[in-house]
Amino acid sequence: MNSKAALPPWVTIDPLLKNWLHEDIGRGDRTTQSLRLDRDAWGTAEWIAKANGVVAGLPLARRTFALLDAGVCSTQLVPEGTFCNSGTTIARFEGSLETLLLGERTALNLVMRLSGIATETRQYVEKITDLPTHLTDTRKTTPGLRVLEKYATRMGGAINHRMGLDDAVMVKDNHIAAAGGIPVAIERIRPQIPYPLTIEVETETIEQVREALDAGADIVMLDNMTLDQMREAVRVIRKFDRPVKIEASGNITLDSLRAVAETGVDYISTSAPITRSSWLDISMKLHPKEKNGNCP
Amino acid sequence: MNSKAALPPWVTIDPLLKNWLHEDIGRGDRTTQSLRLDRDAWGTAEWIAKANGVVAGLPLARRTFALLDAGVCSTQLVPEGTFCNSGTTIARFEGSLETLLLGERTALNLVMRLSGIATETRQYVEKITDLPTHLTDTRKTTPGLRVLEKYATRMGGAINHRMGLDDAVMVKDNHIAAAGGIPVAIERIRPQIPYPLTIEVETETIEQVREALDAGADIVMLDNMTLDQMREAVRVIRKFDRPVKIEASGNITLDSLRAVAETGVDYISTSAPITRSSWLDISMKLHPKEKNGNCP
Amino acid sequence: MNSKAALPPWVTIDPLLKNWLHEDIGRGDRTTQSLRLDRDAWGTAEWIAKANGVVAGLPLARRTFALLDAGVCSTQLVPEGTFCNSGTTIARFEGSLETLLLGERTALNLVMRLSGIATETRQYVEKITDLPTHLTDTRKTTPGLRVLEKYATRMGGAINHRMGLDDAVMVKDNHIAAAGGIPVAIERIRPQIPYPLTIEVETETIEQVREALDAGADIVMLDNMTLDQMREAVRVIRKFDRPVKIEASGNITLDSLRAVAETGVDYISTSAPITRSSWLDISMKLHPKEKNGNCP
Amino acid sequence: MNSKAALPPWVTIDPLLKNWLHEDIGRGDRTTQSLRLDRDAWGTAEWIAKANGVVAGLPLARRTFALLDAGVCSTQLVPEGTFCNSGTTIARFEGSLETLLLGERTALNLVMRLSGIATETRQYVEKITDLPTHLTDTRKTTPGLRVLEKYATRMGGAINHRMGLDDAVMVKDNHIAAAGGIPVAIERIRPQIPYPLTIEVETETIEQVREALDAGADIVMLDNMTLDQMREAVRVIRKFDRPVKIEASGNITLDSLRAVAETGVDYISTSAPITRSSWLDISMKLHPKEKNGNCP
Amino acid sequence: MNSKAALPPWVTIDPLLKNWLHEDIGRGDRTTQSLRLDRDAWGTAEWIAKANGVVAGLPLARRTFALLDAGVCSTQLVPEGTFCNSGTTIARFEGSLETLLLGERTALNLVMRLSGIATETRQYVEKITDLPTHLTDTRKTTPGLRVLEKYATRMGGAINHRMGLDDAVMVKDNHIAAAGGIPVAIERIRPQIPYPLTIEVETETIEQVREALDAGADIVMLDNMTLDQMREAVRVIRKFDRPVKIEASGNITLDSLRAVAETGVDYISTSAPITRSSWLDISMKLHPKEKNGNCP
Amino acid sequence: MNSKAALPPWVTIDPLLKNWLHEDIGRGDRTTQSLRLDRDAWGTAEWIAKANGVVAGLPLARRTFALLDAGVCSTQLVPEGTFCNSGTTIARFEGSLETLLLGERTALNLVMRLSGIATETRQYVEKITDLPTHLTDTRKTTPGLRVLEKYATRMGGAINHRMGLDDAVMVKDNHIAAAGGIPVAIERIRPQIPYPLTIEVETETIEQVREALDAGADIVMLDNMTLDQMREAVRVIRKFDRPVKIEASGNITLDSLRAVAETGVDYISTSAPITRSSWLDISMKLHPKEKNGNCP
Repeated sequence: MNSKAALPPWVTIDPLLKNWLHEDIGRGDRTTQSLRLDRDAWGTAEWIAKANGVVAGLPLARRTFALLDAGVCSTQLVPEGTFCNSGTTIARFEGSLETLLLGERTALNLVMRLSGIATETRQYVEKITDLPTHLTDTRKTTPGLRVLEKYATRMGGAINHRMGLDDAVMVKDNHIAAAGGIPVAIERIRPQIPYPLTIEVETETIEQVREALDAGADIVMLDNMTLDQMREAVRVIRKFDRPVKIEASGNITLDSLRAVAETGVDYISTSAPITRSSWLDISMKLHPKEKNGNCP
Repeated sequence: MNSKAALPPWVTIDPLLKNWLHEDIGRGDRTTQSLRLDRDAWGTAEWIAKANGVVAGLPLARRTFALLDAGVCSTQLVPEGTFCNSGTTIARFEGSLETLLLGERTALNLVMRLSGIATETRQYVEKITDLPTHLTDTRKTTPGLRVLEKYATRMGGAINHRMGLDDAVMVKDNHIAAAGGIPVAIERIRPQIPYPLTIEVETETIEQVREALDAGADIVMLDNMTLDQMREAVRVIRKFDRPVKIEASGNITLDSLRAVAETGVDYISTSAPITRSSWLDISMKLHPKEKNGNCP
Repeated sequence: MNSKAALPPWVTIDPLLKNWLHEDIGRGDRTTQSLRLDRDAWGTAEWIAKANGVVAGLPLARRTFALLDAGVCSTQLVPEGTFCNSGTTIARFEGSLETLLLGERTALNLVMRLSGIATETRQYVEKITDLPTHLTDTRKTTPGLRVLEKYATRMGGAINHRMGLDDAVMVKDNHIAAAGGIPVAIERIRPQIPYPLTIEVETETIEQVREALDAGADIVMLDNMTLDQMREAVRVIRKFDRPVKIEASGNITLDSLRAVAETGVDYISTSAPITRSSWLDISMKLHPKEKNGNCP
Repeated sequence: MNSKAALPPWVTIDPLLKNWLHEDIGRGDRTTQSLRLDRDAWGTAEWIAKANGVVAGLPLARRTFALLDAGVCSTQLVPEGTFCNSGTTIARFEGSLETLLLGERTALNLVMRLSGIATETRQYVEKITDLPTHLTDTRKTTPGLRVLEKYATRMGGAINHRMGLDDAVMVKDNHIAAAGGIPVAIERIRPQIPYPLTIEVETETIEQVREALDAGADIVMLDNMTLDQMREAVRVIRKFDRPVKIEASGNITLDSLRAVAETGVDYISTSAPITRSSWLDISMKLHPKEKNGNCP
Repeated sequence: MNSKAALPPWVTIDPLLKNWLHEDIGRGDRTTQSLRLDRDAWGTAEWIAKANGVVAGLPLARRTFALLDAGVCSTQLVPEGTFCNSGTTIARFEGSLETLLLGERTALNLVMRLSGIATETRQYVEKITDLPTHLTDTRKTTPGLRVLEKYATRMGGAINHRMGLDDAVMVKDNHIAAAGGIPVAIERIRPQIPYPLTIEVETETIEQVREALDAGADIVMLDNMTLDQMREAVRVIRKFDRPVKIEASGNITLDSLRAVAETGVDYISTSAPITRSSWLDISMKLHPKEKNGNCP
Repeated sequence: MNSKAALPPWVTIDPLLKNWLHEDIGRGDRTTQSLRLDRDAWGTAEWIAKANGVVAGLPLARRTFALLDAGVCSTQLVPEGTFCNSGTTIARFEGSLETLLLGERTALNLVMRLSGIATETRQYVEKITDLPTHLTDTRKTTPGLRVLEKYATRMGGAINHRMGLDDAVMVKDNHIAAAGGIPVAIERIRPQIPYPLTIEVETETIEQVREALDAGADIVMLDNMTLDQMREAVRVIRKFDRPVKIEASGNITLDSLRAVAETGVDYISTSAPITRSSWLDISMKLHPKEKNGNCP
């Protein structure tokens, strides 16, 4: 199995990584470059987890260093999505000291952020691991990191919700109001969208659930409903004459998660693993060493 | 006083905002655009804080909508850096429903993230508000948001540390090792850097503190020292024959912060308000209304 | 109804239009600029269809001129998607002669190309207008114009297929071979993709159709089947215990289209309106006139 | 002879190819990437012409795959500009299945479009191959593909007309009207332009031809003239005391082409091979194979 | 007459100006922005020439400020290309103090550089003003400023040579050697290039001059010839049976210029006004004033 | 010692180099590419100084060729910052003739410009080489080349001043006026800026010097003072109770430089090496040779 494959191709991600390197480097690394180290000043950088957590994003660290200098050798020591204990060496990078110091902060910031999200996601997922319900994320992601933060929730065990405004339709209260009701909204939307796209409708009452079903919704979202309402909604939807997916949403916490899953919904969406998680602490230890023509 | 002035000029920020809009919009907003609303379908969007916190980033929301459509009117109802109680309406945007729905998520994500940072920062700052010590941030910031996340810590009451690798020098253990000691490192760096730039040296022992002073460091960072060590270091530095700034760093928590400040250091740096904060919850309520040629 | 709404927002399209202007302008318009016309040299440009066809893309022409000079006034004289006879004046632009001459070629090339596609699409669509089957496009689009060429097929009466590799899954023969069969392919794909996304499977035999149904395909594509095979496939799929969409594909011509639709498939996909259409000829007639502070 | 040499250097073309890959890939290839194929899943892709035609653009296909993955080996089996019969294998690409599937559509779309243009151009060119008259293209090219579509007409046997607004001057009726006549237009333009640039004047009457000659035009274009008018114009121009190039333009068809050429003009310009051509059908057959360290 | 018209359109120049603003502003203007001036802090900036010289580039200054803030009013007080004495106020800008201070350096640097070039060019041009020979520039221009530096030589009275590698052909000694002689070089080049493009051949001997004429060169460059050689070359070329332009090049100085012109060549090319000129000193004086809704 | 280390990393510089290549190449190198040389047409290019001067920027030439073609071999024959006599071969490049001709002008223009600056800087620096005073540059740099032109002054022996508006604070007369005095300006600025940044104040009188000292300035600039005033200012500042750096500025010439340095100031800033220097003439001689698989 190929762990890189779950990320978009480099041609897509490279511009992001370059922007982020520019952000940190600006007009140059005044400290390291001013030391004017010998080109043969070489080292090994070990990345060590300083807390327990799920690691995500290491291929991005490898690529960050590679964009600075094709001569850096990278070894990922644990597969993406692995839960590691504090103290675990998770990756090793070998190359010129100058490059390792230049890329350190950008690469670490990225992996610490993504691993923090994966770690938090895992905590949620483990609560419902024996149930058929899936955890899913939302569009509440840090601007510029959508595709990577959603990769991190996936590494944590979640399933992604739509990636943007263009790969699925979500009809919310404001759309319903603007259009003048669920049926007219769906009727207008369906012929305008690529036909493989699905339409999800946000509902707050059982009545709206029925309206969404009749209007042809592919997914019904139960927004901020009580457990009783949710159970009732699930019952109504399961009796409908075609399969419709059910998503629960709204103020889901680690405490309430399992009870919601037990109502029988297919998906529970929450932004918490992204908006309420801390970074996983990872530190880089640098060991000078003899330059080595070929990587190990 | 001009609250926008603390942000970089729009010519600098616009490319970021556009990238972030592209990230969410992709090939188009399948939902709203497919409704094909009348151009006169107009509305007022109110942004309401759903938790107590310090608001930061509202001028960015105004600009986000303006980049989509110059016809959106924005009213910021609380100044940047204000602590607001849950339920406060913090801004109002008026324009076409299509534009308000199109920019909603990007603008909200940004302001929620920045306000979360400002809120967390404020909690730290308030612990030492009566002391001369300042709280400062680090380079642990989300890739792509450096300048804005550091704006948020400033709105929370902190003072920024350097913004990147190019506006100040920080000599860390790895640089010292690579160069062969603090004196030689500074000696090499000084003539290479723009002369107004300052040199900070990371020290772990009193001996290194003395070495840094003698070598001409402008700032001495006390890294992971005990309170006793810090007090000793402060004493040594204050006795030196020129003023040198002192920064404490390393695993500062809300609990330990005040004791560290009381050692007399000038600055305490911590990434926690950025790496360990949750987003401030803000919701957008949309009210359709008659189109109005001129904004209120 | 708002005819612009069907296009992505300007923030998305402007970079394309600017690139295309740069392509034509290069280091400057040697002819017009060298005339050094007075800034008040003003004119009205009429766009006239020189053949019968369906017009598409006029809002893009308006935007092209506006990017050059906010002072150009644009009047779209026929709604997008209208069939016009040769000789119809379809739009009028008023502004400085220099701007009108500068943007002429880029704007015309774009609208001629898109109108050509809409015109060809309309011919196909009209063959099956009384049947429930929809015409749909493919990913065979001119590099760089995907979103606009698919807008044009929509203006011609088609429904779009997926817009790219990321908004729907299409399992083709090569994927099936690489994975080792349809069931294993879908089993691997489903948990990796955003849950609202649908999975389409390309099939060449009735056996594969059954396999796709059992494996949970949302859409089954009948690739290059005979009419008899298609009829059989439709029968099999309609009897399945959940609704599954059916798409026919492969060498559809204007002649064979109706017969295929009559097999009862939901969608017929063809690239012909994009890959085998001619541009709709449109010419621009420029009339010098007095400068006029306000547009009409 | 070096077939790549006729294309602009990669540093110029790479940004285009990357944009086009981004257009198709978006946030990732949901299908192929979700299969998470082994990195050693390898294959050979054969490109086979499905119709008779002139092949153009294969170096661009090679570069497209190379931008995704430097490990793809490419073999161009027929030289650029070769007429191939349906069924000919024109190129072979070997590399990871993931890369081959990822770049397939973008690379094929480009080569199919360019080969379609070359094929159509060849048909025109062959009509006048024994005459001294050259076929030339126009600025009616698909936005964003100017340089490549004009490469394709060259592969088909045409000579390019100017590439944009900046590498030659073309004085059309609107310029003449705005300036107040041909003499004043040329008088104004000549000192403003780089001195190696030539000035072409569009004429509709013999009178205008004379005016253009006297005013110093380097090229005279005969716009929409009858055959008789053209013959007369050629006679007038050939008698002039310095060599002036003659171009015929306006509604040239495959039928009328030869008669126009026989009037003795130097160039006949037409947009038809670009605006009225169909793509050359090419398909890609993928054969899984053992991974092979070195390409053949 | 419209002085802007000689510059490329803003859509072309804006990306350059934005890049240059980013270069100076970086992460923000620490000085001015930190003053947090009131938005109504308004001022008038006068630009005063501090030396005698020819002014060029003022429309670019206006645009630079406009890109920062549409509210800045600009008044160009002398036309482009005017010779001004030291002490002349050449432009006035009115707007917020913050904007005027933010754009000051970038705008001044540009205009000082361009005016320095125009001033130096003028000195050369005045030496030969009564002769039919024209001064022309070369491709020795500061990277990134080609189009603007060549605009400046034009404002100084020169005529531009080709703008890049793509708008004219220049066959130099290395090309001749690589191809195997002048005839074969031209024979290969002619069918590959857009037909309106001209071919210039660099010659060092009369023999090469003849070879170039016979091979069909449109322009013959006399490279580093003595005055006698040049006179001979002019004689030979003028006797040829079609008009061919003559350019002299190589170590032309202000002293030797007139003698070279008197040999009868059409053009003398030199990079000196660009590579050997000093900036024209211009200073900006800022006068605070009351904010004024409408510009004067 | 590593001569590349003084330049920003390639990830920062590559976009500049690519832009500059695009500027020269445009739609392709009509001359060289049209020769359609064999891919094996190989050569060695020698770069020879045609005047005495200090060489700067050769690593940028190497990179320019590498961006066009990874197969070019580069040998820098003199270290950066070396004074070379006219006739010295300073670098050798080996690769395909096509690549060497394609990158020639862009690479040469850059190195000629930077070497001209380094040469002029060296002349200034040598005047004060035995004094403790340092020469420093200003923000008067060619738009787009700031970081490289300042690298060149460093190679000439100067020390850089701030690189932009964001890495140091400079309070000038206009800021003082806008804020209402030096003390209030510094008071407002200090808490807004990253704390490692220094504040420089521009002073014109001894009174302002004292004000700046009292207000906490880190650097005092003596602007356009007489030698007597400077001596007095130095005396006042050296007596102050903390070390403050002193910079002299304003109309420094090669003649006046030493006298100013002898007043005891720490830095003398002047833009002359950048704004009043000529390019160092360098020519490229190309020798065809057999293709050689491995570089020497």
